[in-house]
Amino acid sequence: MDVNKRNIKLTIEYDGTNYHGWQSQINAVTVQDTLAEAIRKLTGESCELVGSSRTDMGVHALGHVANFFTSSPIPADRFPYALNSVLPDDIVIKGAEEVSAEFHSRFGARGKKYRYRIYNGEYRSALHRNRAWYVRGALDIAAMQKAAEYFLGEHDFCTFMATGSSVKTTVRTIYAVSLEKKADLIDFEIQGNGFLYNMVRIIAGTLVYVGMGKIAAEDIPGIIGSKTRKRAGKTAPAHGLYLVEVYY
Amino acid sequence: MDVNKRNIKLTIEYDGTNYHGWQSQINAVTVQDTLAEAIRKLTGESCELVGSSRTDMGVHALGHVANFFTSSPIPADRFPYALNSVLPDDIVIKGAEEVSAEFHSRFGARGKKYRYRIYNGEYRSALHRNRAWYVRGALDIAAMQKAAEYFLGEHDFCTFMATGSSVKTTVRTIYAVSLEKKADLIDFEIQGNGFLYNMVRIIAGTLVYVGMGKIAAEDIPGIIGSKTRKRAGKTAPAHGLYLVEVYY
Repeated sequence: MDVNKRNIKLTIEYDGTNYHGWQSQINAVTVQDTLAEAIRKLTGESCELVGSSRTDMGVHALGHVANFFTSSPIPADRFPYALNSVLPDDIVIKGAEEVSAEFHSRFGARGKKYRYRIYNGEYRSALHRNRAWYVRGALDIAAMQKAAEYFLGEHDFCTFMATGSSVKTTVRTIYAVSLEKKADLIDFEIQGNGFLYNMVRIIAGTLVYVGMGKIAAEDIPGIIGSKTRKRAGKTAPAHGLYLVEVYY
Repeated sequence: MDVNKRNIKLTIEYDGTNYHGWQSQINAVTVQDTLAEAIRKLTGESCELVGSSRTDMGVHALGHVANFFTSSPIPADRFPYALNSVLPDDIVIKGAEEVSAEFHSRFGARGKKYRYRIYNGEYRSALHRNRAWYVRGALDIAAMQKAAEYFLGEHDFCTFMATGSSVKTTVRTIYAVSLEKKADLIDFEIQGNGFLYNMVRIIAGTLVYVGMGKIAAEDIPGIIGSKTRKRAGKTAPAHGLYLVEVYY
């Protein structure tokens, strides 16, 4: 926070395939570093770019949010066009606005919406590769929908967290879920006040186990209550996950 | 045609982004060469792979059809699994069947269905890049739908052919068209007994001109009748085009 500079909030879409996730890393290309470099080219300033989420390698975003402080006189609504002209074609700025100096894209986030996409065709897909998890064989969609509903509300989601993570509390509230199949694609969407590390991917993996009949939909409350990672399904791969929206 | 060998018909999906089109070329990677090499790895035989369409560089396919003759004893229904295990992840075999020795995927085709996809968002898309033509600004969808209808039926489509092409006749029959917008994506589909070189891309470019108000929907019959390439819109880029299905 720098009261002498303007605080710019960006909304970002990216194809995560060619990035080692969002977060800046040494010796690896990340979305954060690529975007910070585009801002530097445009404004001539190095900036600290604060991201709302540290998406993993291969995860995509339709509406990631980040903010940075700048002395540049460029009007906020010109940032998308200006940045898009210097960004690679797998990252795009879809919105920019000037926000108060207090705005912090991570600490200020009140909730997020994720999508997990499954490709359920008979053969793998050339066009959906890197964009959806390929799961073969019949899946019981009605059972998956029923299972998804059990995640609604406030729960301790410690069953659905990558082992070794450390956070103050593992309690989160889920506001909305949906799961639908159109042709060979299954889209699971989940909206909540926050998500633990790998939480959406572990829930997606668990829903696929329900679809396969390995877990009964009615067992979900017991699995949540067990607080035991191994009771849940496997962690679904990163490339089916999309950060859809961040709420403030 | 070789009566001592079996004739195998393949249905193929591919992401055309990384290929110089379907057709075999020296010093360029093409879908045909890549698939023929996979067949050689699997069967130990070099084959002449006959494709139904010579898709251009960057054009995608959901259901391209090709056939080849083989002495291999591999059952036809095992070819998809076997070939997919040696193909790169942007090409996939979605079906295989043994057909009569007379079957020829190009000469035998009675019709084809293509899709042309347009991304009509405010900014370019990271996730739809290489998969849809980015057209900015408001488009009159109703006018585009009306214009699309004029292509139905038998016409001399020489207006909608890349200049310099040579074919016996430029008369083709269009059986069905549809155009719909969902969120930022516009999908135009067209089904006919055959298509001239670049025909779908020139029609798509013309429909976008109609959407922009540069051409009136009612002018389409006159443009078709003019037999003058420059009366039509520009050729839409290859990466929005999908060969959806080939009919026999």
